[in-house]
Amino acid sequence: MGLQYAKAAIEGGFWQRYRALVRESVLPYQWKALNDLIPGAPKSHSIENFRIASGLSDGQYDGMVFQDSDLYKWLEAAGHLLGDGEGDSREMLAWVDETVDLIARAQQPDGYLNTYFTVKEPGKRWKNLREAHELYCAGHLIEAGVAVFRGTGNQKILEVARRLADHIDSRFGAGKIRGYCGHEEVELALVKLYRVTGERRYLDLARYFVDERGRSPNFFEQEARASDFAPVFSIHDLDYYQARVPVRELADASGHAVRAMYLCVAVADLAIETGDEGLRRTAERLWSSAAERRMYVTGGIGSAAVHEAFTVDYDLPNDTAYAETCAAIGLFFFSHRLACLTSDSRYADVMERTLYNGVASGLALDGRGYFYVNPLEVVPELCDKSGTYHHVKYRRQPWYGCACCPPNIARLLASLGEYVYHIEGGALYADLFHEGSIACTIDGRELAFRQTTGYPWEDSVAWEFSGPSPVTADLAVRIPGWCRTPGLSLNGARLSPSARNGYAHVKREWRPGDRLELSVPMPVERVYADPRVRADLGKVAIQRGPIVYCLEQADNGPDLRALSLPAGAELRAESDPSLLGGVVTVSGSGLASVSSPGALYGRDRRKEKAVERKLLFVPYYAWANREPGEMAVWIREEEEA
Amino acid sequence: MGLQYAKAAIEGGFWQRYRALVRESVLPYQWKALNDLIPGAPKSHSIENFRIASGLSDGQYDGMVFQDSDLYKWLEAAGHLLGDGEGDSREMLAWVDETVDLIARAQQPDGYLNTYFTVKEPGKRWKNLREAHELYCAGHLIEAGVAVFRGTGNQKILEVARRLADHIDSRFGAGKIRGYCGHEEVELALVKLYRVTGERRYLDLARYFVDERGRSPNFFEQEARASDFAPVFSIHDLDYYQARVPVRELADASGHAVRAMYLCVAVADLAIETGDEGLRRTAERLWSSAAERRMYVTGGIGSAAVHEAFTVDYDLPNDTAYAETCAAIGLFFFSHRLACLTSDSRYADVMERTLYNGVASGLALDGRGYFYVNPLEVVPELCDKSGTYHHVKYRRQPWYGCACCPPNIARLLASLGEYVYHIEGGALYADLFHEGSIACTIDGRELAFRQTTGYPWEDSVAWEFSGPSPVTADLAVRIPGWCRTPGLSLNGARLSPSARNGYAHVKREWRPGDRLELSVPMPVERVYADPRVRADLGKVAIQRGPIVYCLEQADNGPDLRALSLPAGAELRAESDPSLLGGVVTVSGSGLASVSSPGALYGRDRRKEKAVERKLLFVPYYAWANREPGEMAVWIREEEEA
Repeated sequence: MGLQYAKAAIEGGFWQRYRALVRESVLPYQWKALNDLIPGAPKSHSIENFRIASGLSDGQYDGMVFQDSDLYKWLEAAGHLLGDGEGDSREMLAWVDETVDLIARAQQPDGYLNTYFTVKEPGKRWKNLREAHELYCAGHLIEAGVAVFRGTGNQKILEVARRLADHIDSRFGAGKIRGYCGHEEVELALVKLYRVTGERRYLDLARYFVDERGRSPNFFEQEARASDFAPVFSIHDLDYYQARVPVRELADASGHAVRAMYLCVAVADLAIETGDEGLRRTAERLWSSAAERRMYVTGGIGSAAVHEAFTVDYDLPNDTAYAETCAAIGLFFFSHRLACLTSDSRYADVMERTLYNGVASGLALDGRGYFYVNPLEVVPELCDKSGTYHHVKYRRQPWYGCACCPPNIARLLASLGEYVYHIEGGALYADLFHEGSIACTIDGRELAFRQTTGYPWEDSVAWEFSGPSPVTADLAVRIPGWCRTPGLSLNGARLSPSARNGYAHVKREWRPGDRLELSVPMPVERVYADPRVRADLGKVAIQRGPIVYCLEQADNGPDLRALSLPAGAELRAESDPSLLGGVVTVSGSGLASVSSPGALYGRDRRKEKAVERKLLFVPYYAWANREPGEMAVWIREEEEA
Repeated sequence: MGLQYAKAAIEGGFWQRYRALVRESVLPYQWKALNDLIPGAPKSHSIENFRIASGLSDGQYDGMVFQDSDLYKWLEAAGHLLGDGEGDSREMLAWVDETVDLIARAQQPDGYLNTYFTVKEPGKRWKNLREAHELYCAGHLIEAGVAVFRGTGNQKILEVARRLADHIDSRFGAGKIRGYCGHEEVELALVKLYRVTGERRYLDLARYFVDERGRSPNFFEQEARASDFAPVFSIHDLDYYQARVPVRELADASGHAVRAMYLCVAVADLAIETGDEGLRRTAERLWSSAAERRMYVTGGIGSAAVHEAFTVDYDLPNDTAYAETCAAIGLFFFSHRLACLTSDSRYADVMERTLYNGVASGLALDGRGYFYVNPLEVVPELCDKSGTYHHVKYRRQPWYGCACCPPNIARLLASLGEYVYHIEGGALYADLFHEGSIACTIDGRELAFRQTTGYPWEDSVAWEFSGPSPVTADLAVRIPGWCRTPGLSLNGARLSPSARNGYAHVKREWRPGDRLELSVPMPVERVYADPRVRADLGKVAIQRGPIVYCLEQADNGPDLRALSLPAGAELRAESDPSLLGGVVTVSGSGLASVSSPGALYGRDRRKEKAVERKLLFVPYYAWANREPGEMAVWIREEEEA
């Protein structure tokens, strides 16, 4: 029982480019942003708040009540990167040390740590758990502490995290405050802290927060009636906080999507660490709700802008979509935990869909612009002129007043090596394909593989056993759900292993130089949504391998709504190394309707003249990296005549 | 030049039922609402504010800053009804007298009248024209004064209106406050006051407000910089107020839809009264924008909930629609003025579309429930669970905190007789068909017609000349734009008059008993939107005569999205006197898709099993008068196989 840590090195290919971007561009840029040094971007004030809380600076607290977490997530990302020993990290290490010192100075003598309540509302600690994000911020500090400790061996930040966790443990629980945070996060962080320290109290406290949540009488209702309760956001809907019923009784992924996902990660983590069957069933049920009935084809979740929330099954509007980057990241983490718990490939399939599409779409190709909201259809004129689309941006943003997404995507990319394999039941599962290597110990046996692939553009993935000596091991490689005709060969000889839950297991005595090759032919595929998804009725999306495509105005001109794809039209994939950092495009012969003038409403169905038009699809993740314009993932499909 | 007053009596048929409802149910109900006597409904406090302002009651002002206007619109409706001498009006007359006395008491010695600024902010008069609605409220008082004076001869309320108008005239204009109201209304009201009093100053003041609006330097921008400016709503977008450019330079109907329409009514009124060609062109241009590119098939306008506003051409989403009842009423008034100005039937066509559909939909059949928002597609589960639809109600509401719509629809229905004919160029134009009579004087000649029809359910409309003696007159009857095969006969003999701008002119010496009969065959029609309306692509709406139909769950079961109509399916109209107060329904053989279980996204277009299903369409205006459920105006049309 318990999660076995299996971290791979990402050493080339698609994700290495992103990781280099994070190292060379994203984190230095965000360091500037957190220091309020990006001209024209909204001020963060996050580091300044810590300087004020430490007595290093005068001034007023500024920013959201949870502004501390932006710095913590940046620190976590830096910790992950430093752990890989990549590139010249001296400057990064100096920033990390400076940040750790600053955070340690801001910690109070009793272990409490939160600059908002230290600087601005010193008398209000733990009085508004529902809205004030204290435990949420603590969770991100703990995650950062674990990552930096693992990456650099820095004991100081781990000590800060432990002192804060101990302080929380001293204040929360039976006989103490019987509450929990309005924004889940500390639960999963405490499990991480338990994993790195072995201290059982942290695991127990995480379980306490999960089990207490939503119990009757409701803590949030009681808290809000207290005389010293000071509202921050005044959102009263208990579903928003996943707090209307006990967590084990939640029927659906509902409320604020990021909160829901972070809770689910903790539920799955607790099931992994404790073997609790009820929590396992809860995790599986909520995942099925989120990923099988409430997820965009891009892996985005949380379809409503109001409350950044889940709505109901199959309600997935493309144009008013919210699909926050952080929520997709949350679904990725949650799916990873279930992959570890069950070794069923459906979970890694969703990790892959989310990562390559709805997560990657949140970061500009140059690392200096972000999307918080990831719509599947955009008409810039509507974003400019209709309040219905006020949340949808078609230009990448330099930063945000509420800047949760930028450092979140950074920490995920920086830690991606932790998510590409998992170990369970004595087997090594290859979940996500990448160029790189892993060395690990399973049941006392050391083994190492080097993986080579041109994925996601090319359809071959190879694992070469790199020793250190012959060893019997079970390497289970995921057969992607999207692949119709996988092939497997060992040292050039075709294999036909039985796939179990979507993984092909190759259990044998591996010798140095042994080479397993997986072939995943990736023709261009048309994808259709369940017909209960109103927004996609009569429409088709294009996918090749794990990559979901879209049409952009830059390639196809304006008025994308007038374009359609005949059911029989051939679609060709073509590599274009010069486009959008190097992508495979998809093109085919479509139709463009030409409107004739007429009345707004008429008795005759306007038979638009349809002219042939070459359609060029580009990967969805790469949209909005050229001149601003329309974008659409779903396109009308014309039935064959 | 100038509008010739031509008021008909509505004496039976479709609209008489509505007028009886207003008299017997709506106005007594609203009187209770304004007196805070409806259990469970939001409190109005409107009358109580006047009692406080008059010194008759202690207490605090409560309600919106424009709460006075609710009472004024109610008073206007009562004035219109009393003018018709219908039914037992003693109680209504007593309420009106009581209200007039109360309003007169609340008027300040200098003529100023506004309970908010009298009770709550006595030092803040005219300091926030952009947001505080003072001139807007004054406009509604003036409209009420004109209606009550016309209906009952009550001089006192007309005197209150004149004193208020004189006070405004003394404060606004060149050398005085060079401002205008954030919510247009006073302009059209001043034209009405000019028409009833002949006082040219009121017309000039209306023109001043219209011509000053949007001039540079911008008044609203200057005002908001003043030290004594106190924000109410803090909406800064000048387009919202139609104040970014001078009115004559406005290119489109834009911003808050009700404000835009009330401004347009005044622009057209001023063109009528002054012959100003620039204003006429402005009115025609803005009408074309509103009605020919930005109007729902129901006549609703203003498609975005945020700012209750117009967006861009062809942006007419059905499910997130706003389409405020007041905005449709505004479009009705605006179209009426252009009908009077141009005698082109396209304007009365839109009056008809709006009245029978997007206006009538705002009132429950029992007069005790309202819709502020008039969507064209409703799924109750989404309204309950997705913030994207928070403005959409599927149950009629008993009242509103912002209760502009309920008394607005009452005053329109009560004054409908003013909108069914117009006189222009020596001709009497029959614009809207109804059961009733008109007596008027044209070029010094008295004439009277009695109109009989079962419209909108039956396709024959007859005008019988009722004297008093033979007279040469030009009766111009509108040939509805929706009618393909109109027929006209005089005293049983077929006529083929030339239609001019959509009206058939019958100019002759009319003798008592002469009977002109118009036949407007009304088969069930399929209506299609311009393909630039994304939301309606591939869909069809059903219309018969002027009535737009919808599907309701009450007749068709849930999951309306699964229903479609084959292109060739026959549709039958059938009268059902027992349904929804007596309607003609439309039915036909449609298809219902039956979903088979499957993945949320798959490579195969889910070929849903389509089973034949009888579809029953009911008039859109009558929706949501039974058990709550789904509703849809636009339905997928299946191409013929």
